[in-house]
Amino acid sequence: MKILAIDTSNKPLSVAVMDNDNLLAQTTLTTHRKHAEFLMPVIEDLVQKSDLLPTDLDRVVVADGPGSYTGIRMAVTAAKTIASTLGIELVTVSSLLNLALNIQKEDALINPIFDGRNQNMFTGLYRWNHGSIETVIADQHINLSNWLELIHNYGEQIVIIGDTDSFEKDMRTALHSQLVVGDSLDGIPSAAKLGQYGLTQAPIKDVDAVVPRYLRLTKAEADWKKLHPNEDTHDYVEKV
Amino acid sequence: MKILAIDTSNKPLSVAVMDNDNLLAQTTLTTHRKHAEFLMPVIEDLVQKSDLLPTDLDRVVVADGPGSYTGIRMAVTAAKTIASTLGIELVTVSSLLNLALNIQKEDALINPIFDGRNQNMFTGLYRWNHGSIETVIADQHINLSNWLELIHNYGEQIVIIGDTDSFEKDMRTALHSQLVVGDSLDGIPSAAKLGQYGLTQAPIKDVDAVVPRYLRLTKAEADWKKLHPNEDTHDYVEKV
Repeated sequence: MKILAIDTSNKPLSVAVMDNDNLLAQTTLTTHRKHAEFLMPVIEDLVQKSDLLPTDLDRVVVADGPGSYTGIRMAVTAAKTIASTLGIELVTVSSLLNLALNIQKEDALINPIFDGRNQNMFTGLYRWNHGSIETVIADQHINLSNWLELIHNYGEQIVIIGDTDSFEKDMRTALHSQLVVGDSLDGIPSAAKLGQYGLTQAPIKDVDAVVPRYLRLTKAEADWKKLHPNEDTHDYVEKV
Repeated sequence: MKILAIDTSNKPLSVAVMDNDNLLAQTTLTTHRKHAEFLMPVIEDLVQKSDLLPTDLDRVVVADGPGSYTGIRMAVTAAKTIASTLGIELVTVSSLLNLALNIQKEDALINPIFDGRNQNMFTGLYRWNHGSIETVIADQHINLSNWLELIHNYGEQIVIIGDTDSFEKDMRTALHSQLVVGDSLDGIPSAAKLGQYGLTQAPIKDVDAVVPRYLRLTKAEADWKKLHPNEDTHDYVEKV
């Protein structure tokens, strides 16, 4: 099975072409937020360097969030468009889980973090169990102090990766030597690992229904909700 | 420090541009042995996508072997040329060590393998010690059965990565559950990890003196040695 894997959830852009779990070609860039400019040319270049035509692809695997609004919209839109156009399978994977795949430790909890500003984080807790990664605490948008309450009773080492800078000091105070800070390279998503993981997941049945996993309201939605406390945010887009 | 890292030791080509230990851009291809065709365009593309000029580079880190004759000659020649032309530092790193960097396990021995054909391998044994990787058995070109004699007295798990297919069965028979076979992605060199490792190494003083680490004679050299058993292979190139 030929797989195209895409992660542009945050500042890094990572794209890979896989043949089952073998990497054919991968590019990762961290220098731009110009995902709109680079994503399609990088995909085309890697498919070509893999000696494939787009029609040879069987599945698209995309990291669907959480992450930056623009980044996950871009990746999900590109993935849905490619899957629809080519009539191929689509698999979505948590962007936090994809980062957790970078840490191979069997005896530790893995805590990927994306900065949500103002001491808030997008985060989740993962662990390897006999070669499979499993969710210990589901992905969420949460304040650091609430997150520390959730995780402080675990006995294992906790490896933080990703946007750790804003949180490391307070987490060290709470977790002491239980805290391990991952390497800078472990904080960069690998589309190859994403594709490898996505190979074993069941594809989405209804490609059109896929939306990015924002895990929090946009500021505009939150403002609207303040003004309309009793209405569902589904009504946020004004009916005209 | 801006670093260009290159590994084309075997079938994969991996190039990265780093800012100290932060990845700026990386491409890895496994589909071609056309390193001659792809290496320079990939380097140019990644330097450009990193928003750098070649003259911004401070150091080249190259995996200098062992590996395929053509692959390591290509990488070493490109690295020496770039270092000389730009007047920047050159660091060489074992291609086997670079592969070992993919395995983060602290409590195991890491055994990267390149297939040397006819049950011969290029291999070495590595281990992490307090965050640094160290050589347990030096890189060498050796027959499988001799290698098994060298390693069979270690008590730790031994993780094999790279060209494991030709050796896995016999190694399993000898090492039983002590043997762990790495993931296919762990067998692909990462130029990002190479650059990160090379950041902390002292640069080569005499760039002109750097040659690939072949670790065995070419067939032509071996044939010549048979005919000239008492002469040094330094005299292999006929003086005219």
